[in-house]
Amino acid sequence: MKKRIVLALGGNALQKNGEASAEAQKKIAIEVGNKVAELANKYEIIIAHGNGPQVGNILIHEETASSDKAPAMPLETAVAMSQGQIGYWLTQAINNAFAKLGKRKTVVTIISQVVVNRNDPAFSNPTKPIGQFYSEKEAKTLAREKGWTVKEDAGRGWRRVVASPKPIDIIEKNSIKDLVSDGTIVIAAGGGGIPVYRTKILKRLKGIDAVIDKDYAAEKLAELTNSDIFVSVTAVPNVYINYGLPNQEAITKTTPQEINRLIKYGYFKSGSMLPKVEAAIKFASKAGRVGIITDIDHLAEALEGKTGTIIAK
Amino acid sequence: MKKRIVLALGGNALQKNGEASAEAQKKIAIEVGNKVAELANKYEIIIAHGNGPQVGNILIHEETASSDKAPAMPLETAVAMSQGQIGYWLTQAINNAFAKLGKRKTVVTIISQVVVNRNDPAFSNPTKPIGQFYSEKEAKTLAREKGWTVKEDAGRGWRRVVASPKPIDIIEKNSIKDLVSDGTIVIAAGGGGIPVYRTKILKRLKGIDAVIDKDYAAEKLAELTNSDIFVSVTAVPNVYINYGLPNQEAITKTTPQEINRLIKYGYFKSGSMLPKVEAAIKFASKAGRVGIITDIDHLAEALEGKTGTIIAK
Repeated sequence: MKKRIVLALGGNALQKNGEASAEAQKKIAIEVGNKVAELANKYEIIIAHGNGPQVGNILIHEETASSDKAPAMPLETAVAMSQGQIGYWLTQAINNAFAKLGKRKTVVTIISQVVVNRNDPAFSNPTKPIGQFYSEKEAKTLAREKGWTVKEDAGRGWRRVVASPKPIDIIEKNSIKDLVSDGTIVIAAGGGGIPVYRTKILKRLKGIDAVIDKDYAAEKLAELTNSDIFVSVTAVPNVYINYGLPNQEAITKTTPQEINRLIKYGYFKSGSMLPKVEAAIKFASKAGRVGIITDIDHLAEALEGKTGTIIAK
Repeated sequence: MKKRIVLALGGNALQKNGEASAEAQKKIAIEVGNKVAELANKYEIIIAHGNGPQVGNILIHEETASSDKAPAMPLETAVAMSQGQIGYWLTQAINNAFAKLGKRKTVVTIISQVVVNRNDPAFSNPTKPIGQFYSEKEAKTLAREKGWTVKEDAGRGWRRVVASPKPIDIIEKNSIKDLVSDGTIVIAAGGGGIPVYRTKILKRLKGIDAVIDKDYAAEKLAELTNSDIFVSVTAVPNVYINYGLPNQEAITKTTPQEINRLIKYGYFKSGSMLPKVEAAIKFASKAGRVGIITDIDHLAEALEGKTGTIIAK
């Protein structure tokens, strides 16, 4: 039986040198598609992806050009839009990679709602900057009018900040699982998923403006689909201690326990390697499951245990 | 066995009185969701939807606020974005309608690529206006720079016009069919689908800026998924002869042959009732299949043959 893998691709990975045109991003999607297609003989594949720069640009367009006739979409809907956008590019790129190999394989993108807890402590301390920059005055007016939290962003101006709550469920999990079991490559939980919560009494789903970390969401997806391997596909082949320093050291095979110790020593930066490492050890904390962190060029070898940072009990 | 139905919902149906905010459109999606959930006991359901006003607003935002750092997305990608947006709203609305009924049912949105023929005669005569209005000078500059076709639009200014080619295949058809066979409600081919064609020699999929009529795409989806009934859900309970005139007459049960005669007499307007009627008779031209045109309030009764315009051999 094929092993089932979840690949968490960075949203930045589609924008090399900040080139944000559809054409430029599709070109990179083609490279990703080729790598993914090569894995399909050996693995059942689910792909989750980030959307940082893409949803950022959608929000900038929506907010800058908002009018009464064409009002800006809120963040949660913008995430859904970015899932359509990036999912389409990846789907088509993988379709074409199979055409190149002379093979046929079904690939689909599932628009995904990811459930968060309305009482997640993250909501009382929004930290994730999104969308365009404003002057202090504009920012404070928007805060008043729309109930936004705004913060000064490293001397570059004022921005809206939103919460980054933890994912607790994925509404479309069963369809994703059924499709991947039938041999379909599924793209899901894009951008960490559309953040939704269940209302208290009636249990209705409701969208909420937030950003769910894409590695946490992808890890949840890996759990819910009974996957064997979770891979955070990033810009470097390994996780490193003292990255970029003379005493830099690559982490190869390790255990959740060891990585946890390194986290406590403060070796990994939040917003950078920390969420990837946390997601990988969360997944690998159950016996038989493997968490990997590597880049796309080392992906195939890392899946065979030959390279990358591989975490297992 | 349950009958399988494809519902083609108008994109305008989500924007009552032109209210285009996410909040306003979600409210209408809730009404649609309630109607759909009521049908799930009796039918396997696939939903296709239009995206005219939604993709129009996306394009206006993308083009108005385009910059080097955040360049505007092309139409084909904007269609993918609108599939995410509207698909999310409908999925959540149907999820909540089932919660209200105390039932569980899986609902998913599939990002859908619809194949057109690069040599479709529509490409040599683009007729579909999209996006924002420009001055004549701006329009002609854009035409030169981007290869757009631009036209003066009824005294309101200049706009880009694109082709409206016929759908010939849906890339994701097998996944859609598998999901609906398993009892999942599937939302697919939104906005007529993302228009793609296959390159001549290498047979790669490639997006193309065009607008596929949502009724034609939904009809194709109904054929490809072996559906029993195709319904174009519109603003009126029936198709009429001399609509709005004193001698107005509702068409109830009829045959493809009879409707074809009425089309030849010029009774139906292109861009209005004509594509719905054409889609319905195309579907009903095969024995055993039924094409229906009605509004959402008469949908349940029309499916039982009691009202609406019902076309069958």
